[in-house]
Amino acid sequence: MARWEPNAEGRLRTAAMELFLERGYDQTTVADIADRAGLTSRTFFRYFADKREVLFVSSKAFEQPVVDALEAAPADAPPMAAVAAALDAAAELIGANREHSRARQAVIDSSAELRERELIKLASLASALADGLRRRGVPDPQAGLAAETGIAILRVAFQRWREEAVERPLAEVMRASLADLTALVA
Amino acid sequence: MARWEPNAEGRLRTAAMELFLERGYDQTTVADIADRAGLTSRTFFRYFADKREVLFVSSKAFEQPVVDALEAAPADAPPMAAVAAALDAAAELIGANREHSRARQAVIDSSAELRERELIKLASLASALADGLRRRGVPDPQAGLAAETGIAILRVAFQRWREEAVERPLAEVMRASLADLTALVA
Repeated sequence: MARWEPNAEGRLRTAAMELFLERGYDQTTVADIADRAGLTSRTFFRYFADKREVLFVSSKAFEQPVVDALEAAPADAPPMAAVAAALDAAAELIGANREHSRARQAVIDSSAELRERELIKLASLASALADGLRRRGVPDPQAGLAAETGIAILRVAFQRWREEAVERPLAEVMRASLADLTALVA
Repeated sequence: MARWEPNAEGRLRTAAMELFLERGYDQTTVADIADRAGLTSRTFFRYFADKREVLFVSSKAFEQPVVDALEAAPADAPPMAAVAAALDAAAELIGANREHSRARQAVIDSSAELRERELIKLASLASALADGLRRRGVPDPQAGLAAETGIAILRVAFQRWREEAVERPLAEVMRASLADLTALVA
């Protein structure tokens, strides 16, 4: 029987970030992470499918609430307003701690396999948002375009937020990026 | 000394597509592909870094001419007009043979590692387009937003073009998708 460990997931995530920053991602094993967290590799794999996943929020904890926000937008909201509601929800979930986001991104940028995993996660979110828009009655190609555009804004705004000299709320940077895009394509 | 083989690259690409469609991507080895093409694995690796690459146009043959088209747009063209010129060039390069594009996409969609490689190629193109826009004097975040939006249009339009009942030129579908996007964010 597995022993219940208080906050095992959080301890594994913290240990992983520490080790990735100290030694580098490639030089850190799952056994190292589990050891630093005072847990076993077996426990690690109860929470994460592989070493890469320890850097990503689960789709249940991120993609699902973002899609829920899209679906909860007023029925008569135009597609990009529903996407903006989804971006607000995303900002709330990933915009809490800028120092952590910067450190995490430095790790991701250091590894081709982490960059690939990040792109897969964003493609999955784009696909889930497009499906959500279709359920709201938005036809194709508008559903796909609005969803992909939302991801483009998320990517650019998340980077802008991490790099700006003076910190602003991520939701504000997302809204500003959407306004910039509107001006660009006008 | 390596013997010169006429059109070795094209023969390897054709052999690879045949085998991927016959047996599946995972069940085909580089040796199988070389054998079908009447060449050696060593020749394969002179043209492609790995098995995945045989399905992708080289960056010299695709990314570079697309960025060149962006840079060749009139100096006073607004950012999205320069992106539209890049999309025209992309359409010319990848819109020649719809049946081939459909078969190729079916192979890519069958394999997680191929989908990852496709996302990496598009991210690389987005980054190159953003750099090209910065060289044109477009500031950030507009450069990043216009580039990412261009890739969103490319993805959606390329899929739309492959799937439409009646074939239209890809450049026309790209322009229509850009117009749809403009209406969406207006």
